[in-house]
Parts: sequence; C-alpha cells; structure tokens
Amino acid sequence: MRASVLRRAGEIVVESRPVPRPAADEVLIRVGAVGICGSDVHYFKEGRIGDFVVESPLVLGHEAGGTIVAVGSGVAESRLGERVSIEPQRPSPTSRQTLAGAYNLCPHMEFYATPPVDGAFAEYVTIQSHFAFRVPDTVSEDAAALMEPLSVGIAAARKAGITAGSRVLVTGAGPIGIIALQVAQAFGATEVIVSDVDPARRSQALKFGADRVLDAIADDAELRTLGVDALLECSGATPAVLSGLEALAPAGTAVLIGMGADEIAFPVPLIQNRELVVTGIFRYANTWPTAIDLVSTGRVDLDSLVTGSYGLDDVEEALRISTASTSLKTMIRPGSAS
Amino acid sequence: MRASVLRRAGEIVVESRPVPRPAADEVLIRVGAVGICGSDVHYFKEGRIGDFVVESPLVLGHEAGGTIVAVGSGVAESRLGERVSIEPQRPSPTSRQTLAGAYNLCPHMEFYATPPVDGAFAEYVTIQSHFAFRVPDTVSEDAAALMEPLSVGIAAARKAGITAGSRVLVTGAGPIGIIALQVAQAFGATEVIVSDVDPARRSQALKFGADRVLDAIADDAELRTLGVDALLECSGATPAVLSGLEALAPAGTAVLIGMGADEIAFPVPLIQNRELVVTGIFRYANTWPTAIDLVSTGRVDLDSLVTGSYGLDDVEEALRISTASTSLKTMIRPGSAS
Amino acid sequence: MRASVLRRAGEIVVESRPVPRPAADEVLIRVGAVGICGSDVHYFKEGRIGDFVVESPLVLGHEAGGTIVAVGSGVAESRLGERVSIEPQRPSPTSRQTLAGAYNLCPHMEFYATPPVDGAFAEYVTIQSHFAFRVPDTVSEDAAALMEPLSVGIAAARKAGITAGSRVLVTGAGPIGIIALQVAQAFGATEVIVSDVDPARRSQALKFGADRVLDAIADDAELRTLGVDALLECSGATPAVLSGLEALAPAGTAVLIGMGADEIAFPVPLIQNRELVVTGIFRYANTWPTAIDLVSTGRVDLDSLVTGSYGLDDVEEALRISTASTSLKTMIRPGSAS
Amino acid sequence: MRASVLRRAGEIVVESRPVPRPAADEVLIRVGAVGICGSDVHYFKEGRIGDFVVESPLVLGHEAGGTIVAVGSGVAESRLGERVSIEPQRPSPTSRQTLAGAYNLCPHMEFYATPPVDGAFAEYVTIQSHFAFRVPDTVSEDAAALMEPLSVGIAAARKAGITAGSRVLVTGAGPIGIIALQVAQAFGATEVIVSDVDPARRSQALKFGADRVLDAIADDAELRTLGVDALLECSGATPAVLSGLEALAPAGTAVLIGMGADEIAFPVPLIQNRELVVTGIFRYANTWPTAIDLVSTGRVDLDSLVTGSYGLDDVEEALRISTASTSLKTMIRPGSAS
Repeated sequence: MRASVLRRAGEIVVESRPVPRPAADEVLIRVGAVGICGSDVHYFKEGRIGDFVVESPLVLGHEAGGTIVAVGSGVAESRLGERVSIEPQRPSPTSRQTLAGAYNLCPHMEFYATPPVDGAFAEYVTIQSHFAFRVPDTVSEDAAALMEPLSVGIAAARKAGITAGSRVLVTGAGPIGIIALQVAQAFGATEVIVSDVDPARRSQALKFGADRVLDAIADDAELRTLGVDALLECSGATPAVLSGLEALAPAGTAVLIGMGADEIAFPVPLIQNRELVVTGIFRYANTWPTAIDLVSTGRVDLDSLVTGSYGLDDVEEALRISTASTSLKTMIRPGSAS
Repeated sequence: MRASVLRRAGEIVVESRPVPRPAADEVLIRVGAVGICGSDVHYFKEGRIGDFVVESPLVLGHEAGGTIVAVGSGVAESRLGERVSIEPQRPSPTSRQTLAGAYNLCPHMEFYATPPVDGAFAEYVTIQSHFAFRVPDTVSEDAAALMEPLSVGIAAARKAGITAGSRVLVTGAGPIGIIALQVAQAFGATEVIVSDVDPARRSQALKFGADRVLDAIADDAELRTLGVDALLECSGATPAVLSGLEALAPAGTAVLIGMGADEIAFPVPLIQNRELVVTGIFRYANTWPTAIDLVSTGRVDLDSLVTGSYGLDDVEEALRISTASTSLKTMIRPGSAS
Repeated sequence: MRASVLRRAGEIVVESRPVPRPAADEVLIRVGAVGICGSDVHYFKEGRIGDFVVESPLVLGHEAGGTIVAVGSGVAESRLGERVSIEPQRPSPTSRQTLAGAYNLCPHMEFYATPPVDGAFAEYVTIQSHFAFRVPDTVSEDAAALMEPLSVGIAAARKAGITAGSRVLVTGAGPIGIIALQVAQAFGATEVIVSDVDPARRSQALKFGADRVLDAIADDAELRTLGVDALLECSGATPAVLSGLEALAPAGTAVLIGMGADEIAFPVPLIQNRELVVTGIFRYANTWPTAIDLVSTGRVDLDSLVTGSYGLDDVEEALRISTASTSLKTMIRPGSAS
Repeated sequence: MRASVLRRAGEIVVESRPVPRPAADEVLIRVGAVGICGSDVHYFKEGRIGDFVVESPLVLGHEAGGTIVAVGSGVAESRLGERVSIEPQRPSPTSRQTLAGAYNLCPHMEFYATPPVDGAFAEYVTIQSHFAFRVPDTVSEDAAALMEPLSVGIAAARKAGITAGSRVLVTGAGPIGIIALQVAQAFGATEVIVSDVDPARRSQALKFGADRVLDAIADDAELRTLGVDALLECSGATPAVLSGLEALAPAGTAVLIGMGADEIAFPVPLIQNRELVVTGIFRYANTWPTAIDLVSTGRVDLDSLVTGSYGLDDVEEALRISTASTSLKTMIRPGSAS
C-alpha cells in the first residue's frame, strides 16, 4: 500500500509498505479521509511535540474514517463493509485510569501518529474492533474522519459542565473553536460568544451559529466583563487565556484546549475569589457514540468545516495550506488519484 | 379587584377583594395569564391534595405572568412596567435546604394556591421582587405564565442528568410530557421517545418533535427493551412507571414527575442489578433564568401548548375542559372580558 | 487439587480436579481463605439465584485471597509469592459500560461462583493479574479474602454520597451491615445508627462502633423520624426498606444492598415530595485499592468479623452455620487440614 | 463595651463603643474567644487586602464564638444563654449565587472585619440568628471560635473531592495546613503527606497525625513524584504551588487556599496532559454543621492549635506574635482581664 511518511522534520515522502494485518481483536480499514490536525503540522515542522520526538519514520494523521475490509480472527465477519469512524487510541485495558473510565489518561496509551505509533495518512490502517464505530449512511467520509476533533469538543464541553442555559465563551475561531461553538450549543448553551483576532474567522463563527463575536483585541475590555459560565479556550494564545479567565462568572470553569505557551502567569487571586475551576483536556474517552449522534441528527455540521482535500502525494502541500487563516479543515483522501 | 375563589370542593365563585399591597421586598403584578395545572383541578374536585386541605376559601393558579404595576419600599422603581414571569414560591431564607441551594425543599415554604396561600386566578398578585423574572418582549403573556411548568421539566432533566447524546423515554404526552420532551432535546438528548395510550396525544408528541412515539399498551414489549439513559415519567400511571423502569439501560435514571398511586410495587432486583436511580422532583429551584433562555431562543415552544383561554368568570368551565384529552394547556386571563 | 463442588442443590462434595493453568494475563493463586456469602448459601439451598441456575457442578466461593504461585506468560515473575486479595470478576474490556468505568455492569461479565463460572472453594484459582491485588504483610489471610464484602460496602457508600458529617442509617446488622457501618464512618459519617430485630446483632453493632442502635420493630416510630442523609439497607427485609425510606431527610439517598422481596410497594409521593434518591448496587468497580487502604490503616476491622473457619471437607457444615444469628463471617480455608 | 479598633495601618487602640442592638433576625453575642487570622495581621500591617482598604476605623477578628445574651424581636427567647459559634458573613438572600447554594460568592456579601464591616475583637457582636450555631458543652470557647478556619478546610476538602482512600498532599504546615491535614483525614483520606520548609512545623504536622512529612526544599524532587489525588495548598508560596501541581496524579485536583503572589506561572501542558483541576476557595458555605460534628466527635482537634491567648488590651502584641513560626493559633479573649 502507499503511505505518506515523515522521515524527519520537514521531509515527507510517499512509501510503499505492506498492508497491515489485523490482530485477532482488530479490523483492517481502507482509509477514506483523514483530517489534518495542528499536531500533524507541528511534527512535520519541528519533528517533536514536547517529549514526543520523531526518531524514526512516522506516518502522520489521526482523524480518520473509512471502510472495514478485513477482520481479525476474533471479530464478526458481519462487520466487513461497514463504514466507520476510528477512535485512534489503544489504552491498556488494565491500568487504573482505564478501569476507572478515564482511559485517555492511561499511562500505557498507544495513539495514532504519536511516535513511535503510525497514523492514518495511508491507504490502510488497523484498529481494535470496538474503536471502529459504525456511522450511518448519511454521514460523509469527511464527517466520519472528523468525529475525532468533534470528540475533543465533546470532552471539553463535558469537563466544562455545559448544559441547558449555559453562557459560553469560545476563544479562537479555528477548526476546534468552530467545533466547540457547535458542541456548546448541542449541550444546550443558549448564548455562545466567540472571540478571534481575525475578522474572517469571526465571520465564519457567525456562519456556524455564534450568537455573537468579539474582536479579541479591540473588544478585550468588553470580553472581560462577560460573566460567562464556561470558557472553552481554543486559541492557545496567552492573552486569550487571561482575558477568558477574567470573563468567567463566579464558579465558572475554564477548559484549556488550545496548545500554546509552556507557562502562563495565572491570576491566582481571581481564581480564588471567584472559585474558578481551571482544567484542560487530554484527548477524550467515551465520546464517539455521542459524536456520531450529534452529527447524524444534524446538531453538529462537520462537512462545512472542510476547506480543501488532497491525495497522498500532496500531504506536504496540504500540511502547509492547513495553517492558512482561510483554511478550516484540510483533508487527506488516501484513495484519491491525488 | 376580582378574584376567582374556591370556597370548597366543587364551588368556585368570583369575589371582589382588595388589591394586595406589596411588602417592602415585593412587587405588585397585574396578572396577564395563568395556566391551569392538574393540581388546580384536583383541589377543585377533591378539596385536598394529600395533607394539604382547603379549609378556607382559596384562590387557585400558580403558573402566572404579568406586568409589574407597583413596587414595595425596598424595590427599585425602575421595575415598574416590566413584563415578568412569576416563580410562585416563598421559601424561608434561613432553612438548611435553602442555604444549600435546594430551597424547593425548604420546610417553611409558602407556595401559591397551596392552602392557605392564595394563588393567581385574580387580577393582581404580589411576589418577592427577585422571583418576578423579566421576560423579553418576544415572550408572550401565555409563555411568561408557562415558565412554571417548563421549570418542572428543567428540574427533571437536571435530576435525570440529560446531556448531549442522551436517549430519553417520556411516558405520558400531556402538557408536562410535551414540555419534558422539548426540555430533553434542549438539554442535548439525541433521541426522545414518547409513549402514551392516546393516539391523539402521540400525534401531538410527534408534532412537538418526538423522534418516535409508542403506544403505551400495544408497544409495551418494545418499550421495555429500549435501553434508554433516562425516564421522565409524566403520566403517573403505574404501568407506565413499571415499563419505564424496565426500559432503562444499566445506570439509567428514572425521574417520577407524574402524580398517581400512593404506592407502586417496585422491582427491587431490577433496580439493584442495573444500578438504576429512581427519584422524583418536588417543584424546582434555580430554573427560571434557564426557562426564559430556552423560550426566548426558540428551543422550547410554550405558546403552541395553549389550547384554550378563559376569563375569571369561566374558571370552573376552564378547569373542567383542561382535563379533556384534546386540551394541552388551558389558560386563565384575569384581565379579559370573560 | 481438591475442590468443594456443588453438584446440585443441597449436595456438596470434595472432588479432585486438575490445578488450573493461568492464561497469559493471569496468575495462579493458592487460596488462603474464602468467606462465605449469603449467595453461596442460596445456591447451595435453592440451586439458583434469579436467572442464574446451577445446571452443572459448580465451585462456590467468591470472597477470596491467597498467594501467587504461578504466573501466565504475560505476567512479571516478580509477582510470584505475593500475598493477594482477589477481585473475582472478569468483565469484557470492550463493552460500553467497562469503557465508561462501570465494568461491574458489563453485560459479558464472568464472575466467580456464578453459573457456569467456578469459584474459590478450592486449593487453587486463577484470576487476571490486575485483579490480584497485593496486600501488606499486616493484612491477614482472612482480611485479604474479606476485601470482597468490604468492596460492597465501599460501592454503596460511594453511591450514597457519604462524606464528612453525614448521618447514616444502616438497616440490618449482619456481616454486610457491620461492614457498611464501618465504611460509613471511614467515609466521614459522624453519626451512624444501626437497626436490627436481633438484640445480639445490635450489641455487635455497638461493639463495631455504631453511634446508636435501634430495635427495628420496637423503635420503628423513632427510626422513621431520624432524618438521615443516607440509608444503607443491608437486611433485604421489606419493613426495613420502608421504614428506612421514611427515615431519610429531604434529598436523602437510599442504597438497597440487601436482597429480599422481588417487589416492594414504594411510597411514591414520599420519594417525590422529599426528592429522595433510591438506588441499588450490583457488586463493585474500582474498590480494591480503597478497600486495602481502609484495612491496612486500621479504619476498617475485618478480622473481628470472623466467627468460624472450616476446611474444604466441611463446607456444607460451614454453609449451614454461616446463617446462624451468632455467625458473622464464616471462612473456608482450603489449605487447612479440615 | 470595649472594642479593639484598627484606626489605620499599624495603629490599634481599645475604644469604648455602644453595645450593638440586634436587629429583628439577629442575636447579640458576648464574645468568648476570637482567633487571629493572617488577614487580620495583613490589615493591621498594610491597611488593605487587595481592593479592600481600611478607610475608616475597623474592628478586626472574624473567627469567633461566644454566648447569646440578647435576641432580636424575631428570634426565639429560648436561644438566650446558648453557647455558639459564629459564621461571620451576611450574604444577600436574593442573589443568584445565594439561591444556588453558593452564598459565599454572593456579590453583596457583608463579612466581619472586612471594610467597612466591623469584626469581633470586641466584647459584643451581632449576627443573624441562623448563623449563630449552637455548640455542645464539650466544645471549648476556643474551639467554637475556630470553627471558622475549620470551615475553610472543609470547603477545600469538598472542592478537592477528598473521600475514603484519597491520597492528599498538604503544602504548608501553619494553622490552615494543620486543619487541612485533619480535615482530609476526616473525609477519609488514607494517606496525608505534609510539606513545609520549617522542621518545627513538620514535627507539629506529625503530632497532628500526618502520615508523612517532607522538607519542601530538600525533598522537592521526591515530592514532585508523589502522584496524589489532591493538593491542599496552604502556604501561598509559589514554589509550593508548582511542586504541588507536579505532585498530582492524572485527574488530580489542586485547591489553592493560601494567599501569596498575584500571579504564578502555571505549567499549562501539565494541566492539560494530566487533566488536572486547579481551583481555589473563597471562604465557605454550608460548613458549620459539619465543622461542629467533626469537632464534637473528636475527628478534628482544634484546641491543640491554640498557642497563646490575649485580652483586648493586647491585640497588637497578639497580632505580632501570631506570625511567629512557633505560633499556630493566637486567640483574643475579649472578656479576659487582659
């Protein structure tokens, strides 16, 4: 099969590799579409994210869906032909975190496109059967892939405790911000305000249903007085984090989703005096069924996020273009002519 | 002013009474509309509900909205002219339950239309200022009144833990069932199934957005296998309660809203083996802001619940008609000619 | 090896069986002690519990501890010789309930001494490595075994939300009641009242630290007015359940632990008017580390529960004596001469 | 009556003032004992804490207990003579936060010894009747006063989710740290580790029951690897906050109690990757009944915290000595000769 391989920072090539064989509890999936995530770009450019270093060739891509074309010995053959979305992780079933339902925090996790585990910029991938989730026919290949970033939004909305009547601030109107906006509304939020520095991104947020948008710089003073119940911070920008904390009502919750500075000078008295809760998310657990339900019932629109699609031969170009402010989600379609 | 007074079971007359004077922390409201609740009918017919007995003349009606026409000495005059929805209760501010945020469970509660406290089938009522909630201009008088039964639905959805992706069974498609259906969806439920014995009520449930309806009798076997996350029991019918419990998935929650038999033979091993949670609600606390948000953003439609309106002179007829299966919500409009 | 086998209801014999071989992820344990549970007695007498029927010979016993004497191919040899407590269940790692942390509700569960899975009244048993929990040297063999009923108490206290300052009623002062009492205190309850019909059992409750005991019959009126935060129902007796519900304060929680009648006529208006939460537990999940901590720090005393010990040849006698009101916990010690 | 008045930063004098008269819902209390809090010292030295500035003479002291000697017109005379602990706050009963049970976050709060509200370094004070909590005869006057800092510990333990089996790190072994240690154990924590830079304070922590103490500087590397469930940060020292965060296990919670730097550079990736929860507390709500229960049942020892007592004439000396590392709690006894 053909696979797009990151040999080292800055160098991506298409290689021919054997089609993987599914283990007993796995399925083999012909990849339909894969979304490009900021982390893919980061590995491509820097060759590392924090402690995770690309030390040998790595296949990127972890937002993936496709069709089951083979099953392991322990999996029902009836699954052949199923269109699925992939939950791209493999926790240990016996760690304390997994047993407690927080398998995303399992210390023995293997995760797609995280060294040394290969991802999905390839024609075929394997995944444990129970992490290949069937999607209805009405869900597109792109949407099947994008259940992954949607899961990030769902995990964040849960941590934030968003419910009917919540007022929510989303900082950063990139792809995760647009998803967070939609997820907040799907959880019942009755007012979602989105801030961004870029007017084009603010317009996009309005198109995706934001009740209101704010210029993260010009409207900063107003933003700080919002008094919202929850902050979903999707920009990673330090000023957005700080203004966002200030924007919280007493007992409000901030979920830090965006990645940015290694350290941010937090206003401790503010956290104390308002009893704010500041937390972050690390991927997700138990989100796929909800993600599929939200998309198939039309509560979340993933297809409109897609601003471009490329074949395996053009991954490098796709990675570069994915960071343009005019891009929301750039897809790789491994089976397309290119 | 004119007030409709229940003198004793079965006897309702319009009396002339002095307009009440608001205490320092109260406002005086010219009542716009009042919904009829099953409890009003019950007091009218039986003269009691459980331990609450009508021992002296009582004004019924506790689902009310209107316009502030006078304010107590401690209330800002700027509130004059506000269109408001009334939270019809007065807990003690110092009971342990109130201090803990569960003021609906306060043992010293005074509640509209619950002996010996008068309700709102009258031209004017008073309420503490903070329990007169301003509604936007887009909210009708009827909808302002019906924030009260909507609050019941909100309290139930919170207790049931309904969130994005929940699957919910609503048993009973009367006014509370129709509200519960809408509230479940507003909390993010992606599948809401409604059961009722009456085909007309089932059709209505579909019009109000039910994903699916079931005949509570003919489809009972199917209903028991639904495996839903939450049951919002709105019928009070013993068979509905029992089928509804069976319909719950492991760890599911049943909220008993409807009033019915004093005792129901519960299947204890089922509760244990599935770790079901069975609970009920007693009115509501901290629901009005959410109720107003849900209506003003269009997530819940209260106006379409109204199937009839009557003046103060026709309360008795209104009470009788309100129990017809063709009625959903019957309103009293104290200011209307009749 | 020698194993005590229930051939059919009422017939128990010692058989010679091959020592089981641990699978790759399992350990082989030489059983030190096994507690007798009411369910063992029930299977012995009736040959069934609900839908679980003894259709082929079954080894009883699921409260067990011992020493690791062999390990599967995937388990570290360093575990050889470890003294362990056994969590006697094997959920599927891929069910939705397991992934969500409620593996006790996994529909594919295999559980010791539940047809057709053999239990621990035998010289050797196997268990998955991660469910063999090391115990400190200070924990006795009996206590290692009794982490299992302690886990029941922990699961119940968690469901009941017991915390510092809670007031708790424990109905039924048998072995589970005595454990529930101790667990409630370990969770911070500052007043634990225990009721039982038997004066000897009430005395025992006092010895184990009950703040107060009540005669379940003579003191029933007093019991109903307690206004406690939580009920841990350990008797299974219908009158105890009903009085216990009445004893709850508004917003109180009842956890039904004891097994008894298939149906109990619940006072629905009471559940509604007080917003009581009624639930049950089905075994436990994620309790062993806490159980071992509570015992090894002296917060819970399991050794004093033991009122008799028998070898494999005397299981039948042990089963019979275990139900005497003078017995709390009767142990089987498979390695003892008899 | 005599009252100790802070005229301006650094200047405290005893003045003669009229005995306050209780309002209808208040009681008049003859103050028995008042603990000195760090905030009292801060006001004395700096004349302000954050936005709260001493602009007119202020009576300090908010950790108080005493005896009811008069009651307002709406309070039962039977309360005369009661020995009570004072919850020194007065929230608005109608704010959204109060109605939701978080009255400590009420924006209209009036709090003892917080400008411009006088505190309890005086012979008599008034408080609303329901915030004067009866204490059992076995509770000393000092302990009655110290229910206030105990309430801080209880609020923190609740926010931290401490329960049976929790492993907890307390940073800072001053009076709040010693209380937090005891509270954590009362909530069921089975291992509480206390860190401090001062060996005398570490010894004290051991005397009060710490399972283990660490030198905050020399043992820093070890401390960072603890993997605890909860951090109760009582030092306010930036290095303690940072090491404490590192010491948390995945999904652990940090409660920032101590006051220190206005900004701390938080390790955002750590918060995200471990899904840590960072929060703070602002006083307390609904803690007094639990506080009194914990003390009267012997689970928390407040009396041993007292390292010195002074009369009203010696408040300045008491304030100065209260910050010595050999002091834990310094008390003012307004009724004592000196």
